Order: sequence, then structure tokens, then C-alpha cells
Amino acid sequence: MDLYSEFHERVTNIHRLAALQGHLGWDQEVLMPAKGGEARGEMMAWLAGQRHEALTHQRMGELLQALESAALDADQRANVREMRRAYDQAVKLPKAFVEAFAQARSNALVAWQQARTASDFSAFEPALSELIDMTHQKIAHLGVTTTPYDVLLDEYETGMTVADYDPLFAGLKERLVPLLNSITEAQSTMAPLGDLGDTRFPEEQQAAFCKRVSEAMGFDFEAGRMDASTHPFSAGLWPGDTRFTTRFDEEDPFSCLYAVMHETGHALYEQGLDPAHRYTPRGDAVSLGVHESQSRFWENQIGRTPAFWKVALPWFKEAFPEAPSLDESTLNLVANQVEKGFIRVEADEVTYNLHVMLRYEIEKKIFNEGLAVGDIPHTWNTMFKSWFGLDVPSDDLGCLQDIHWSMGAFGYFPTYTLGNLYAAQLLDAMRDDLGDVDALVESGDWSPLLAWLRPRIHERGSVVSPAQLIEDATGSAPRPEPFLDYVEAKYRALYGLA
Amino acid sequence: MDLYSEFHERVTNIHRLAALQGHLGWDQEVLMPAKGGEARGEMMAWLAGQRHEALTHQRMGELLQALESAALDADQRANVREMRRAYDQAVKLPKAFVEAFAQARSNALVAWQQARTASDFSAFEPALSELIDMTHQKIAHLGVTTTPYDVLLDEYETGMTVADYDPLFAGLKERLVPLLNSITEAQSTMAPLGDLGDTRFPEEQQAAFCKRVSEAMGFDFEAGRMDASTHPFSAGLWPGDTRFTTRFDEEDPFSCLYAVMHETGHALYEQGLDPAHRYTPRGDAVSLGVHESQSRFWENQIGRTPAFWKVALPWFKEAFPEAPSLDESTLNLVANQVEKGFIRVEADEVTYNLHVMLRYEIEKKIFNEGLAVGDIPHTWNTMFKSWFGLDVPSDDLGCLQDIHWSMGAFGYFPTYTLGNLYAAQLLDAMRDDLGDVDALVESGDWSPLLAWLRPRIHERGSVVSPAQLIEDATGSAPRPEPFLDYVEAKYRALYGLA
Repeated sequence: MDLYSEFHERVTNIHRLAALQGHLGWDQEVLMPAKGGEARGEMMAWLAGQRHEALTHQRMGELLQALESAALDADQRANVREMRRAYDQAVKLPKAFVEAFAQARSNALVAWQQARTASDFSAFEPALSELIDMTHQKIAHLGVTTTPYDVLLDEYETGMTVADYDPLFAGLKERLVPLLNSITEAQSTMAPLGDLGDTRFPEEQQAAFCKRVSEAMGFDFEAGRMDASTHPFSAGLWPGDTRFTTRFDEEDPFSCLYAVMHETGHALYEQGLDPAHRYTPRGDAVSLGVHESQSRFWENQIGRTPAFWKVALPWFKEAFPEAPSLDESTLNLVANQVEKGFIRVEADEVTYNLHVMLRYEIEKKIFNEGLAVGDIPHTWNTMFKSWFGLDVPSDDLGCLQDIHWSMGAFGYFPTYTLGNLYAAQLLDAMRDDLGDVDALVESGDWSPLLAWLRPRIHERGSVVSPAQLIEDATGSAPRPEPFLDYVEAKYRALYGLA
Repeated sequence: MDLYSEFHERVTNIHRLAALQGHLGWDQEVLMPAKGGEARGEMMAWLAGQRHEALTHQRMGELLQALESAALDADQRANVREMRRAYDQAVKLPKAFVEAFAQARSNALVAWQQARTASDFSAFEPALSELIDMTHQKIAHLGVTTTPYDVLLDEYETGMTVADYDPLFAGLKERLVPLLNSITEAQSTMAPLGDLGDTRFPEEQQAAFCKRVSEAMGFDFEAGRMDASTHPFSAGLWPGDTRFTTRFDEEDPFSCLYAVMHETGHALYEQGLDPAHRYTPRGDAVSLGVHESQSRFWENQIGRTPAFWKVALPWFKEAFPEAPSLDESTLNLVANQVEKGFIRVEADEVTYNLHVMLRYEIEKKIFNEGLAVGDIPHTWNTMFKSWFGLDVPSDDLGCLQDIHWSMGAFGYFPTYTLGNLYAAQLLDAMRDDLGDVDALVESGDWSPLLAWLRPRIHERGSVVSPAQLIEDATGSAPRPEPFLDYVEAKYRALYGLA
């Protein structure tokens, strides 16, 4: 066997273990009975250990070194590059630590679910403390070059640091806060934009409506599933098997609809990865930021538009014959209501990035300034009051709302903002290529949109870096202006601002 | 690390891989989207290869040899004994063969599902041929001492051979066929035993009714799930997570009910295994025959009795308010209708073992007499006509009805008959210990029954051989008479025979 084939087999085996972790994670969120939690945590820890052992095998180091000076094609080079990065990180972590961290995450997930239901931070605090302590240890193992938090940020979007995010968020805040204030001012003298009354929207009817939208977006239900879970997510488990979830609120069909459009966006990326490169980094999605650009693009740039509602209105009426007779323009207004609310995942496009920024600031305080775990709720609530002008009534609407920390995912949130920025850039580039995107959406045949994304984003996997991928697709490096221009134009028009 | 601990860790890792195979198998039957089949087959093959590699590792051989002369307790000895058997078999099989066989099984499952739906044997024939060829190869690898089919029989119930089954089945046939003939004769002059009319029994109501029965049997839904699948089965996936499935026929609630009681019987065994011995043979169910004794005991010895229906009648009425008002005695008669039917899993207790025997005879012909794959349908139909007096109208009601061959499980069917025999022996022994079991069932508190089975069957796992386990629990070695006495007494009474 030649060296690259030997390397490829090892890489494939490591990815198979990751796929098993992904599958068990999906099952844990969607189906697992309560008492299965302990064995599941143990199994997740074991898989993490097996994967670590395979990744840090001495032979992997030898193969990487040999292949770095070999003549390889672009796909092979991408695999060597990505495995080098993973290897260099992994060899710094002891196997026992990797297993213990996986076990701690699985435990924390259970503790967080209970704490959130009871809105009792103290029930989550011990598990969260343990995860933060272990994350401090992880940072020490990996080694700090600039600030400790940078070590975490880099894990979720390679190359991104506090020095990148600080000015980015400051720039966003500079234009979003005045926009939000203008909207709030306008709202104080306006009637509500639209109202669904007190209709009840039964779960099965919502599921049917949302599946229809997902199918129209291009999701292949022969190669995937939609299920329900507390927290909507998507998982590209295996070639031919991509699954996403949603949740149902029988008073508000929009919550389910936009969760489905969001998760379908993620799932389309997974269904569009090149199966020829399965079980290798080249065949994986390139980054969380780019992944989020796909979900946000379909949810917001497509789903929250009058053009979308023109197509979806008859489906909506068919699914919910009891709903008040609303026209497409009202439905679009309801879908774009700006509100200073407590919950990030329900936030509109104007306030969404402020929610992200708040989490970023708190994580920075935890890892760079030593904020004590017990002080997180107070710090959260104080910042929220100063930014949103609202008192957080209970922690389930505050620092307990997100699943991420219970999964040890510190440094993850800022990638959501990157996703928003990339999505706006992609829409501009798509318009340059396809012309009037709104007209395409209105036609009801959305396949040209997906066909545009496939070769530019999905099929390329991790062949180049996230920033390079965005630049190749849009003609310019990632930058915030297209998003700010988009959001200002959209909401100024909606709220009749000058 | 001492030698036993090192051995235990290796054993645990091998069992973890088996647990992953079990989990993916469950998912494939219950949830997996159609296009996920290819990657699933590949993953199953990979896991089979990993497990084989771990099992046949040189160090495992060394450890077994060393531990066989070490001072061990009974649990440890059981683990060494069982792993020795598994090791000795596995080292005879090349890893590539094990992987190819797993892949072929996964492919055959898909082919069989399609062939069965279309009732087209020719669509299954190539995949079945491949599996039979590979099974011949497996037999050659493992080595024949008596007859080739014995190699397969031994795999599913250790120590059982054609020389054991031939007289056993002959003895059963000798008493069951005259009983069946007497019943058929009596039926020709009788009104039907009972009729459910043409009521429709909606799926959700059946599910609620059956869950109630399952719960009353002692199944812990916090540590397990009930789902739907084409073919009911149960899977003890992980400690704290045991899952079973059923299927729904909206015209016949009995099909679902008895599938649930059957699968709950299996699942109670899994939930009752000793978690202290998890991921070792000592903590596993001892054999398929004993497993089937648990399912058949609850389905037949408990579920198909007037005492059961006395308890279940109010639940039935509550679940199906639209059903005709039947009394408990009529429901019990409907549940015990004897009929020469085509389908094994729907067969009554009189004809069931004849269905098993037919499969046993055909498998014996395939592996000991070289029956050609293409001749299976004709052979099946001819034997069925001679035994049951019926022409098989299509292969989905004949040789395509069972899933087993598509899973490469040749030699499995006879364990169903062992389960029937063991169940009758267990009922006798339980009566000796607990007195009037019917009265206990009628009381509605079935916990003494489960409490009797727990220490005698479930918690003992594989500490001794299946035959020894039955002898320890019942005071006599496995034998057919208790079953024959039970079935004759029950059906003679039901049909008013002398």
C-alpha cells in the first residue's frame, strides 16, 4: 500500500468513529430514554478515547511528515493539511483527559436539561464549573500564544481571534444599535405589524407544512429525516442519511417554520458534500461559520421575504384552514417583527448579533478575565439590562437558554455572526450571477439557488480555508458591510424609516 | 494491570463494538432513510471487521490460555469459557471474510425487503445465493465434525445438533398432528370461537393499550422505548436503554398486542440482566432458546389465558370504546383460535412448532443435501401442502415471509421451539413455587411472576449453559413433555375435546 492510501485508511477510520459519535449524539437528543444517559456518556467517552488514540498514533505522525513533502493533488493536500492541524492539537491532549472531558460533557448535558426546565442555575453550576475547569486545562495543554480565549475561538473557526472579533463586533454594534433604536422609536407610534390571533396550529399540520417547504428548498427526504427535539439541530450522519430536527409551538407556527428552514439550510450543505470524499476532512463542511451561512441564508435571505410568502401562502392556507385569512405581506411582516426579546434563537436579524456578542463578551470574561462561574447569571443579566433595557426574569430566559456550554462548546457562538455576514455576501454574489433572486424565489422553483450553492460551497468541502471559500464564491474576502447594508435597507423599508 | 483486568478490558471493548452494531441495526430497521442503506452496510462491515480484529488479537489468545489455569470466581470463569468459544471460532475466519459477510447481509436485507413487498423470489435469489455460498464457506472455515448444518445449529444454541433436533421434532409432530386433526374436525361442526366484527382499531389507541399491558408486565419505559417497524423485534442496546418494536394492523388489535407481549418478554430479560456484568458474556442473555422462552412465556402462558383477559378487558374497553362489547371469555377464545395459516409469527401454539420444523427441514436440505436456491420455493410449497393441506398462493406468504435468511441467520429457527418447551417447563416450576399462577395473573399484580424470573433466569446471564440454567430453574433438564402436556390440556379444554 502506498503512503497516501495508508494515510487515507487511517483518516477514514477516525472519521467513522466521529460518525458513530454523531449518530449516538443525534439519538441522545431525539430518542434516548432517560435512564440510558449513564451508559451513553460512558460510550461517548470510549469513542472519544478510541478516536484520540487513532488520531495520535505514532504512524499518523510519520505519515503526515512523509506526505507533506510528497506530490499530491489539491484534495489530498487538503486532507494532509487538516489532519496535520487535528494531529498537532490532539497530541497535546492526554487520552485520559479526552475521555474524561467527553464524559463530563455528557453529564453536563443531563444537568443542564434539568436545570433549564427548573430554571435553576445552581443545579447546573457544578457541572458547568467542571467543564470550565477542564476547558482551562485544555487551553493549558494546547498552549496560549495570544489570549486563552483565542485558543477556543480558533477551534471553531480556524484563525479567528479576539483581535479579529473585537473590532468586528464593535463595528456591528455601531450600526445595529442606532438602527434598533430607530425601529423601537417607530414602533412606539405604530400599530403591531401583524397578528395571528389566537388560532391553534396543530403539530401534525405544522409538520406537513414545514416538510413541504423543506422539500421545496431541495431537501431529499429519501436521504434524510425530520424529527422533533427540544433544541432544533441538524446532523449529516452518513452519506445518504442527513437528519434535522425542529420543535413545535402550537400557538406559533413561525417558530417551527424558521427552525425548519434554518436546519434544512444546514442539512442541504451536508447532503451536497461530495460523497467521493466521504470520511475525510476534504469531504467535510469547512467550518461552523460557513455552515451557519447556509442555514441563515435560507432562513432569512430567502424565508423572511415577501417573495417567499407569495409562494408559501397557499401552502399555509392549505395546512391551516382555521387560521385567520392573512395576506402574504402581513405574514412577511409578522416574520420580520423586530423585538428586544430574551431568546437568541427567536431573535430577528437586527438584534440577533447583539445576542451573540453578549455571549462572546461573557466567554471572554470567563477565560481571559477569570469571571467566577457563580457570577455568570448576574453578569449576564446586568449586560442584558444595559443593552436591551430589560430585566431577565429567570435564568431559562437568560444564561441557561443555550445548549452550547453544556456541551463544552466555548468559543462557538461568534461563528453564528460569521454565518450572518457570509450569508449576506453570498446573496450579493448570487444576484450578480442569477439576476433577480426575489423573482426566482417568487417563481416557486428554487432549484437555481441550490444549484448555485452546490459547486461554490457544498461540493468543495474543506478543499480551501473558510475565508478563501467565501472569497472564491463571492469575489471578496469576508467583510461585514454587505450584511449591514442588507439589514439596514431591509428594516428601514419595512419600518418606513428614512 | 493483572491478567484478568487486561482480559476484561479487551472483552468490554469487543462488546462495545457489538453494542454499536446492535444500535445501528435497530436504527436501520426503525428509522433509517432508504438512501442511507449503502453507507450503513459499509459501516456494519467495518464494525464487524474491527470486532473480529479485537477478538482474534494474539494477546487475547495468550490471555485466555493464561486465565484457563488461573484461580477465578464463577463469573470470571464464565467469561473465560464464553470468550474461548468465540475466540476459537473467530480465529478460523479471515477478517476479509467477516467484513464481506456483514456487507452481504446488509445488502440482502434490502433485497429481501423489496422482494417480499413485490412477492418476487427472483428478486431475492441472487442475494440469498450469495449468503448461502458464504455460509457454506463459513462452515468450511469452522470445520465440520458431524454434518455441515450442525455447525450452524451450534452457533445459535450451543451443543444442539441434528441428532438432537430430529427426534425432538419427530416427538412433537407425533402428538401435535393428531391434536391439530382433532381440533380441525371439531371446528368443522362448531360456530366460530369469537369475532371482532369490522371495527377499526386506530394505531394510537392500540399503542396506548399495548403500552399499558407492557407496563403491567414490568417494562420500565424510563429505561426503554416502544416503536413501530415492519418486523417486531427487541434489542437490549445499552444498560438503561432497551428497545422493542411492534406493528399495527388497524383491523386486528391482537396482532399488535401479542407482538408487544412477546417483545416485552424479550425486553424484560434484557432489562433484568445484571449491570455489574455489562459488556461481558456473563452479563449477556445465555441463548436464543432461553430468550425465546421469556417472550413465549409472557405471550402465551400469561397473555393467552382467561385470567389475563379478566385484567385486560377493562383496558381494552377503555382503549377501544367503539369495539363490540365482548366478554373476557370470548376475547380469550379469539386469542387462541387454532388455524392452519401461512404465517409463522401469527400461528397459534398448536401449529407454531410445525412452522419451525418446516424451516428446519428446508435448512437441513440446503446445507446437508445441497438443495439448490432456486428450488427453495417449490420445496417449501410442496412440504407446506403436505403438512397443512394448503396451497401457498405467493412467496410472501411462503419462503419470503421471514427476515432471518436475509440476515444470514441459518440455524436460528429451531431455537424458537426450544423457547416454547422451556416456557412450559418454567410455568410448571413457577406453579410449584408460587401456587396458583392463574390467580396471580387475575389479581392484576404480575410482579411476583417477574420477581420469580429475575434471579432464576435474567440476573444469571451466561453464568452456566442454557440447559443447566433451565435445569437449575425448573429442577429438570430441558424436555418436551411439559409443553406437550400443557398444549394438549389447554386446547382440548378450549375445543371441548375428550
